Amino acid sequence: MQRLQESAALNGPLCAGLDTDPSYLPEKLLKAFGDEREAVLTCNKEIVRRIAADGLACCFKIQIAYYEAMGMDGLRVYAETLRAAKETGLPVIADVKRGDIASTAAAYARAHFSGDFEVDAITVNPYMGFDTLEPFAEWCAPQKGKGFFALLSTSNPGASDIQALALESGGAVRDRVAAALNSLADRFDAMYEGETCSPIGAVVGCSRVEGARKIREALPRVFFLIPGYGAQGGDAKTCAALLSKAGGVVNSSRGIICAWKKDKSLESERESGAISVADIARAAEAAAESAKSELLAALSQESRG
Amino acid sequence: MQRLQESAALNGPLCAGLDTDPSYLPEKLLKAFGDEREAVLTCNKEIVRRIAADGLACCFKIQIAYYEAMGMDGLRVYAETLRAAKETGLPVIADVKRGDIASTAAAYARAHFSGDFEVDAITVNPYMGFDTLEPFAEWCAPQKGKGFFALLSTSNPGASDIQALALESGGAVRDRVAAALNSLADRFDAMYEGETCSPIGAVVGCSRVEGARKIREALPRVFFLIPGYGAQGGDAKTCAALLSKAGGVVNSSRGIICAWKKDKSLESERESGAISVADIARAAEAAAESAKSELLAALSQESRG
Repeated sequence: MQRLQESAALNGPLCAGLDTDPSYLPEKLLKAFGDEREAVLTCNKEIVRRIAADGLACCFKIQIAYYEAMGMDGLRVYAETLRAAKETGLPVIADVKRGDIASTAAAYARAHFSGDFEVDAITVNPYMGFDTLEPFAEWCAPQKGKGFFALLSTSNPGASDIQALALESGGAVRDRVAAALNSLADRFDAMYEGETCSPIGAVVGCSRVEGARKIREALPRVFFLIPGYGAQGGDAKTCAALLSKAGGVVNSSRGIICAWKKDKSLESERESGAISVADIARAAEAAAESAKSELLAALSQESRG
Repeated sequence: MQRLQESAALNGPLCAGLDTDPSYLPEKLLKAFGDEREAVLTCNKEIVRRIAADGLACCFKIQIAYYEAMGMDGLRVYAETLRAAKETGLPVIADVKRGDIASTAAAYARAHFSGDFEVDAITVNPYMGFDTLEPFAEWCAPQKGKGFFALLSTSNPGASDIQALALESGGAVRDRVAAALNSLADRFDAMYEGETCSPIGAVVGCSRVEGARKIREALPRVFFLIPGYGAQGGDAKTCAALLSKAGGVVNSSRGIICAWKKDKSLESERESGAISVADIARAAEAAAESAKSELLAALSQESRG
């Protein structure tokens, strides 16, 4: 997480999300490749290369669900996409949202913190209880150096069904999760002397700015992974509120991968159906560049108050 | 789920769990195989064959985490274990506990309801909201015929951290999940005319009998997947309370896979370290037989009141 925080300070807070569902790619391109998995992998590699070369993102986030949906060969593409992302030297987050009881959570931690699917940080689901976070926390000690983001406040319509429920004892369900994350962060403070970023992070959507300020105040030292920006309707101002204190990264997935569908310079290619991998990657690059600028402008306005 | 309910009526309520971590197998056996993944697959196939041949279980449940932890080759073993389990004709449950926002949940549903990892039912995590259950519910219509078990009340120590929190408006968090499952079950009732089992199920641990009766009353038509029996300390009486009304299946994983460690007839083999695949499968078979008998006895006592 320290690496992630440093990369965000250097490259800006944009996290480039590679949630590459084949349906996001042009039909003709998929046909030309024959195998949709190869099309996804080739596009991913080219997007990763361009975004890293220009320093447009501080990290990559890969959503495993879209690769799992393509079966065994899809998971091979997942592993190869992870490899390409790691080779850039930028930190890599796997959006796996795993969560289970002790021995099973330990297996998930091994799955995503070592071996074929090793990444720097993952997302985890705390619903089964805070004991289920411990096996992931074990990998966050300095000698292993991993980090995780627990789901705290998501940006989907149903987020209110459980996370926002008001408790008899005061506060909402998500405040309990926040307290558990703060106490985990406390535990790691002493282990990471001299570092400014806790390995314990939280997933916080950017749908409403008032809520964002409250959550940021409640978890001053926790690094945030912020989904919901762009395609999902979250704005840069709310992101900037969440990026204060310990900071965080703002994910954009479809806004980058699907940028070719809206890119003005590709009008004639879209009409003729002749969109190439290079076109998709160039449009992704331009979208990442403009997202980065928008976020940096909002951050600078936020810091001026 | 209808098939699952019918199989439970025919073969008894035991669900044989194949959570085969290599560490559950004898060291010498792992060495003889050279590759731990091959050892796991061979043991799984032999356990599946014996349990199905004797009608000792009504279904199989495979915990994907242990296979994910072995990387790409581990997932190949997972897919092959699923295939062996499906070939017996018994229903197969994948314990994946996936959950995510709409488009991503749809990808997870495709991943586990079709293709290489296709099974009859999966476990899902409802924490992100009830909208996140919809993409799974779409696969539960009669023409697709799949089912899912949402996490309702688990048996780990931390289950009280979120699931049992008392709400300002009355009841606990898990009562909200129960209400959402009841209303999903209502929706499917009309679609499945003539069938007695809803495709909407719930995961309910068997740690305390009073709690079990209350949950069973609250969800009379929902089929339960019941973990926590045996190795995790749950008793048959509590299971029997949960098995009334719409019924359910009781999972035993380590109690079956690790039965070779306690089997009296294997004392000399354990001492010399010469435990074979056949020994492991025979001990698993004996453990499944005794679990089935214990559960059926508790059920018959429960029905006598």
